Amino acid sequence: MTAVAAQVGRAAGLRERYAAVRRFTEHLVEPLAPEDCVVQSMPDASPTRWHLAHTTWFFETFLLGRYAPDYRPFHPAYAVLFNSYYNQVGEQFPRPRRGLLSRPTVAEMRRYRDHVDAAVDALLRNAPEEALPILELGLHHEQQHQELILTDIKHMLSCNPLLPAYREDAAPAASRPAPPLGWVEFPEGIRWIGWEGRGFAFDNEGPRHRVFCHSWAMADRLVTNGEYLAFMEDGGYRRPELWLSLGWSAVKAEGWQAPLHWVRDEGGWREFTLGGPRPLDPAQPVCHVSLFEADAYARWAGARLPSEAEWESAVASAGPEGGFVENGWFHPAPAPEGTGVRQMLGDVWEWTSSSYAAYPGYVPASGALGEYNGKFMCGQYVLRGGSCATSRSHIRATYRNFFPPDARWQFSGIRLAR
Amino acid sequence: MTAVAAQVGRAAGLRERYAAVRRFTEHLVEPLAPEDCVVQSMPDASPTRWHLAHTTWFFETFLLGRYAPDYRPFHPAYAVLFNSYYNQVGEQFPRPRRGLLSRPTVAEMRRYRDHVDAAVDALLRNAPEEALPILELGLHHEQQHQELILTDIKHMLSCNPLLPAYREDAAPAASRPAPPLGWVEFPEGIRWIGWEGRGFAFDNEGPRHRVFCHSWAMADRLVTNGEYLAFMEDGGYRRPELWLSLGWSAVKAEGWQAPLHWVRDEGGWREFTLGGPRPLDPAQPVCHVSLFEADAYARWAGARLPSEAEWESAVASAGPEGGFVENGWFHPAPAPEGTGVRQMLGDVWEWTSSSYAAYPGYVPASGALGEYNGKFMCGQYVLRGGSCATSRSHIRATYRNFFPPDARWQFSGIRLAR
Amino acid sequence: MTAVAAQVGRAAGLRERYAAVRRFTEHLVEPLAPEDCVVQSMPDASPTRWHLAHTTWFFETFLLGRYAPDYRPFHPAYAVLFNSYYNQVGEQFPRPRRGLLSRPTVAEMRRYRDHVDAAVDALLRNAPEEALPILELGLHHEQQHQELILTDIKHMLSCNPLLPAYREDAAPAASRPAPPLGWVEFPEGIRWIGWEGRGFAFDNEGPRHRVFCHSWAMADRLVTNGEYLAFMEDGGYRRPELWLSLGWSAVKAEGWQAPLHWVRDEGGWREFTLGGPRPLDPAQPVCHVSLFEADAYARWAGARLPSEAEWESAVASAGPEGGFVENGWFHPAPAPEGTGVRQMLGDVWEWTSSSYAAYPGYVPASGALGEYNGKFMCGQYVLRGGSCATSRSHIRATYRNFFPPDARWQFSGIRLAR
Amino acid sequence: MTAVAAQVGRAAGLRERYAAVRRFTEHLVEPLAPEDCVVQSMPDASPTRWHLAHTTWFFETFLLGRYAPDYRPFHPAYAVLFNSYYNQVGEQFPRPRRGLLSRPTVAEMRRYRDHVDAAVDALLRNAPEEALPILELGLHHEQQHQELILTDIKHMLSCNPLLPAYREDAAPAASRPAPPLGWVEFPEGIRWIGWEGRGFAFDNEGPRHRVFCHSWAMADRLVTNGEYLAFMEDGGYRRPELWLSLGWSAVKAEGWQAPLHWVRDEGGWREFTLGGPRPLDPAQPVCHVSLFEADAYARWAGARLPSEAEWESAVASAGPEGGFVENGWFHPAPAPEGTGVRQMLGDVWEWTSSSYAAYPGYVPASGALGEYNGKFMCGQYVLRGGSCATSRSHIRATYRNFFPPDARWQFSGIRLAR
Repeated sequence: MTAVAAQVGRAAGLRERYAAVRRFTEHLVEPLAPEDCVVQSMPDASPTRWHLAHTTWFFETFLLGRYAPDYRPFHPAYAVLFNSYYNQVGEQFPRPRRGLLSRPTVAEMRRYRDHVDAAVDALLRNAPEEALPILELGLHHEQQHQELILTDIKHMLSCNPLLPAYREDAAPAASRPAPPLGWVEFPEGIRWIGWEGRGFAFDNEGPRHRVFCHSWAMADRLVTNGEYLAFMEDGGYRRPELWLSLGWSAVKAEGWQAPLHWVRDEGGWREFTLGGPRPLDPAQPVCHVSLFEADAYARWAGARLPSEAEWESAVASAGPEGGFVENGWFHPAPAPEGTGVRQMLGDVWEWTSSSYAAYPGYVPASGALGEYNGKFMCGQYVLRGGSCATSRSHIRATYRNFFPPDARWQFSGIRLAR
Repeated sequence: MTAVAAQVGRAAGLRERYAAVRRFTEHLVEPLAPEDCVVQSMPDASPTRWHLAHTTWFFETFLLGRYAPDYRPFHPAYAVLFNSYYNQVGEQFPRPRRGLLSRPTVAEMRRYRDHVDAAVDALLRNAPEEALPILELGLHHEQQHQELILTDIKHMLSCNPLLPAYREDAAPAASRPAPPLGWVEFPEGIRWIGWEGRGFAFDNEGPRHRVFCHSWAMADRLVTNGEYLAFMEDGGYRRPELWLSLGWSAVKAEGWQAPLHWVRDEGGWREFTLGGPRPLDPAQPVCHVSLFEADAYARWAGARLPSEAEWESAVASAGPEGGFVENGWFHPAPAPEGTGVRQMLGDVWEWTSSSYAAYPGYVPASGALGEYNGKFMCGQYVLRGGSCATSRSHIRATYRNFFPPDARWQFSGIRLAR
Repeated sequence: MTAVAAQVGRAAGLRERYAAVRRFTEHLVEPLAPEDCVVQSMPDASPTRWHLAHTTWFFETFLLGRYAPDYRPFHPAYAVLFNSYYNQVGEQFPRPRRGLLSRPTVAEMRRYRDHVDAAVDALLRNAPEEALPILELGLHHEQQHQELILTDIKHMLSCNPLLPAYREDAAPAASRPAPPLGWVEFPEGIRWIGWEGRGFAFDNEGPRHRVFCHSWAMADRLVTNGEYLAFMEDGGYRRPELWLSLGWSAVKAEGWQAPLHWVRDEGGWREFTLGGPRPLDPAQPVCHVSLFEADAYARWAGARLPSEAEWESAVASAGPEGGFVENGWFHPAPAPEGTGVRQMLGDVWEWTSSSYAAYPGYVPASGALGEYNGKFMCGQYVLRGGSCATSRSHIRATYRNFFPPDARWQFSGIRLAR
Repeated sequence: MTAVAAQVGRAAGLRERYAAVRRFTEHLVEPLAPEDCVVQSMPDASPTRWHLAHTTWFFETFLLGRYAPDYRPFHPAYAVLFNSYYNQVGEQFPRPRRGLLSRPTVAEMRRYRDHVDAAVDALLRNAPEEALPILELGLHHEQQHQELILTDIKHMLSCNPLLPAYREDAAPAASRPAPPLGWVEFPEGIRWIGWEGRGFAFDNEGPRHRVFCHSWAMADRLVTNGEYLAFMEDGGYRRPELWLSLGWSAVKAEGWQAPLHWVRDEGGWREFTLGGPRPLDPAQPVCHVSLFEADAYARWAGARLPSEAEWESAVASAGPEGGFVENGWFHPAPAPEGTGVRQMLGDVWEWTSSSYAAYPGYVPASGALGEYNGKFMCGQYVLRGGSCATSRSHIRATYRNFFPPDARWQFSGIRLAR
């Protein structure tokens, strides 16, 4: 575990945790040149510059703007420039154009962060009770963007024919083979799903509610690169009968022939990692696949993807976890030894068959913060469990991540069910 | 009820029913000039020419090709030309280019239909048992395309500044106001959903399975034009907080300001119908709205859309039905008097909040016919109940229609739940 | 020469000529089914329906609207529906959407033509002097659209995998080989270029003016299919050094590997003609090439394209002409025997190296008719000489046709210079 | 005149001139942060990083690669990465994706420049005669990119809502009004046009040849902001009759309402300059207009644009020049006092009516350097005279610049003729 990351977990009070989370963002940006922080390699990704500023804007707008009456905004234009999608807060600079901006520079962004950090620290010495949930939300929001910094940088570097590394020591060689894949059975019945209790959760994780699940089995580890390669060699990307119709359209339109970040040369398949290109390790979990690829693989394997209710029901009895960003590998590793369903948390996000939708009785927060989750409940699928780029302190069994079915730039992989 | 349509319901044997369904297609095409049958007004719609041929190709390929050993195809090129999306049958002429073809002409399409009809009739005098489910599927397939002929022609005519009518006598003035909207309560519990039993159903309607439903209420009739107009006048199309994020993007990108086929002039709102432009009737159900509009309206009204499990559970206790294509109106009518949830079947398709997905245990048919339903289980939402353009003999309580959330050219409307 | 076409040439008075030109349009449309008249196969092409109406609209708007005070327009909506691009006349229905309209039907278009023809005939019995140039312009305008009817129909039919013929007897086999290619020399000096004199010419053909030409040589016949095939077999479409930069982009973006309407199968190259597919005849002039292809061929052949001044200077001493639409072949034929530069008029339009621009002192007509030519003087290249789809009575040595450099659906070919 | 720029003019020998030109590039980049050097704000523009590298690649490839046998390339991947469009040299990294690269960083680009500069300096101590024209070409090539660095950075900064300045002292307020516009007459006759003589010129400036010019008059200064504003206030952007057809399409598609870089706020029109936003000065020449706007303005003013032959004929008798990059203003200034046609060289590039084409007898250089000019002779118009971003030592009376008719990001303005 890197020292900086460890501090987030250890931080006792809110002020310490605020400082530790903010410092971890800086730590992630350290290996980058100013040039790296500017590029937007596709409309879905954002420049590091922007992540640095937007997370700061979040505290400035929702925390300081509401609870620090004497706070003076750092710059009047930032309210628009670094608003992501909150219509109720005001105008936004268009997302696909974030990469057109070189100013304010990264150094200026750091001054902005320092300015806001000082004001938050002052506020927290004597903050009203109702400010604390917002602070908590802001910290989880920043942890989400920490993960995006890594996946967006990885995508950006992958566009460069030089294939530069983010950190040379990232993605170390795996030390073990993958254990054989086993299945764990679960009986039918009504299951309780969703968040209920203390501590932080996003609004979309509740209300806790009942779902009827028919009996099912779940794979006890993730699908590996080696298994996925067998699918490819069996014509996986050339057989329309394995694919959803939209998936097959994507295969043809995008020319997909392998997961994102796989590159083939004379020496065979290599995988571009945050440590640069690496020989493909058959024991590591396959990642950077879309829902379409996960679904086609499952069909080929005579299985299917789990629903999110099945996934969440299974995690209660789960065995050892996978790795998180704290281990400093920035890449998934082979499944740990053990019994039960393993690797449910960590290593890669696991696509479910569930379209992202509201739980029964879900009501979004009122005001602008109500735009956080609910309005995206269309056209996306739920992923569960966190990845090697997620903070351990950020993940929960009830955590619902979501992306469109053709998204591949996250550390997204495959868990089978049947 | 038109005489031709009535025959479909009355037909006793399969040969009679085959003849009656096929004749009804011709009946729907009668008001059209050859020129009308050629145009493809958008990639989602198809020319009438193509519908006439594709339904015939279906019988030729799946029925005659398998069970009539002496059958000689009408034309060797039609196998590709009129294949819609069956990859396992072979190549397809690209869907968005269907409107580039003027030949074979409509008259030639009729000869093709006659040729196949004669062969099917001959086959049916002595058909093997296993051919009958395919014939049944082909008839329901043709009924689906009958509905598409109407909605595609309506869209095509609406692109013409002359706003020509399909039939002058279509969409007669409504004879009654809409009754006040009431709510019917349903208790929580495990519900059985899906098809089980005899007679025909599509594979996606099964297997029958259990779903847990929390208690809910359902509106006892459809949302009306008048109610929808109130939403519009309250800024419905200008308030992002009412919309899903993708919905708001569609509003801006497409410039939506009203349902499809609504046109405003000095005299106020008019609605383009298959009978030409008509003054907007506030009592008629709103139709030609997307899921996005249905969802935004529901949010504005302090309600939500029903899930498909809720919808199907409610239909068992339903009151009087709405209208179907047999009444020859080609337009929805105000809710009937009565008690319980009314208009569940007929008048307009009802958007549900359910993303179109496989039921637990669903296995598509093997072979090319397995491409009928399963591969579309992504990116679409379920609609229930049939419309004024659907045959009464084609609809069931378990019937699952599905369209993308921005589709508006079907007769799609809004049922509220809460 | 077809009987109907011959009448155009023979018509003595204006009334007879009007009737003959209008009748020839109908004659060209005769082989078409109503379905054929509806399709718009690309934004540059128009449906036959539209050509029938637009040419009529021209007489209605510019002739009857100005000089027939009692004339009652056939339909109030046609003024917008059939205006091509005359901003000063009013709104236009968008060109790329012409293929969305099925109504008014072809039969209705014929009634429209009859209505206008009767009114024009009545007007011509006693027309004011100033109306006659407009009538003349309208007749030449209609002849231009006669050519477009043929090229647009050819493009539309070529999109159909059935490759149907316009007329089975079109494009008869050539009866002779091409004579060897020779060169004719022209000395340097000031040349007079452009129209001056009596009879009709478009405004862009004048004023007559002086141009200095350096000495040059011109090929005495057109480039043949056989010669073009040698260019292709020498890697013509794979060698960027032969192409203009925009041309090379078009080759890659469009996947060009041969002229438009060439199709390759096991039996070698065939050419789609208005008579259907034909074996490629090496003696016939190559046609359906873009300026980019003409320019690349010329570079490969160690030559260049002529400027329009060179072309027009050479035509004065020209030998025998090629064929026109009157011969009913609808396809170019091998060069005639003879001396001097031959085939300068007829067979195929000849790309020049001249960007389409105003002659010194050019002033467009005032009013809406001034939009006829001048506003297109950007982004297009001049073609000279007329084609097998042009009326002989329509062409002149000074005639300037123009198309964008990537246009291929006209009968456009190659004359070399050096 | 800035000290660094002055050195270019003063440099006696080739080694000194090489060093001075290269140093001037660095001088132009000095005000930029590393972040500024990465962004590609549109496909036509390139990041500063890329300009720094590509100019260096040019010397490495064409000079060192051919004449310095012991030279070792700085990095093997740069041959592809920094090749602009030379197909005969090999593959190119796609132009529209240049902004996706953050590495090599700007600092690394400087090391690349130093490496190549040292090798060139060594070569020049004892260079073969045939290398010198390539060196000369490389220096003029670098000067072209110096101008592009400025215009591309200006475009990039203009996309930023903060409207940051390149240099605060750029675009100082003008010290004088514009003199009244007069006309200078030129008689008809044969004119000699094009380069002939000693010293450097691009291949497209020759061969020297004869052109016949009819008599014409030329405006004695450039069109001003104030005059252009009158055109705008007279509905210039709303009247289709003033525009070429493609120009009118561009006006509507792009929403043009003023020249590029004009912004309107409550205080009226401002112009974004390399010194940041400035109140619009009516005396300064209008710039950042497309050919379409120049042509429409001329038509509105009852004039036209000069042909390039007219322009080049007039320059011989020209009065005082305008300003160049050496004055450090980076913005055009009002016309100088004097007689004859003034401001022909400097201040802004002047659109001509001439499509960019080969002069009679033009033969491009053989090999890859032949791709420099000839292959772009389609779809572009000639501009003459250089601008405030051009080096004085780079411009000549025969110099032919060229851009597509909708390009606006260069310092392009309007000279009238009639």
